[in-house]
Amino acid sequence: MESKELIGYIAAFFTTFSMLPQFIRMIRLKEAKDVSIFMPSMMTIGVFLWLLYGIFLKEPPIIIANVVSLILSITVLIAKIRYR
Amino acid sequence: MESKELIGYIAAFFTTFSMLPQFIRMIRLKEAKDVSIFMPSMMTIGVFLWLLYGIFLKEPPIIIANVVSLILSITVLIAKIRYR
Repeated sequence: MESKELIGYIAAFFTTFSMLPQFIRMIRLKEAKDVSIFMPSMMTIGVFLWLLYGIFLKEPPIIIANVVSLILSITVLIAKIRYR
Repeated sequence: MESKELIGYIAAFFTTFSMLPQFIRMIRLKEAKDVSIFMPSMMTIGVFLWLLYGIFLKEPPIIIANVVSLILSITVLIAKIRYR
């Protein structure tokens, strides 16, 4: 694997999984007041469009990373709505 | 512009600017308790690596989008540290 490819994969890992600790924190605190509802909303729309883009390009790495991101973004959005 | 390219640009707009409402909310509330520090931290690391990736590939759209994302992620991280 080329070094730029490796950088891309590590980058994808960090941006994709950045929503996971946010989800865990809201679940732990049972509170989400300080989280803007627009953050996971915009993330969900954007990631959904990245997924479409990956499907258009037939690029499995883009598709896979954005399926995971989409699930995590929707999870954060639901937690925000649930805990307010 | 091809439709897939347009989808990519709209996707980049949403994912890039999703951090802005989060920053505004913390500034308004002067509080960030419910925001996980790992969310903007991981986002900052990931976006920085995407920026390196864009520089390696010499792809201006990747570079520009991730410079903006990097600034916004760092801003959210600073606000989280500032307001706790």
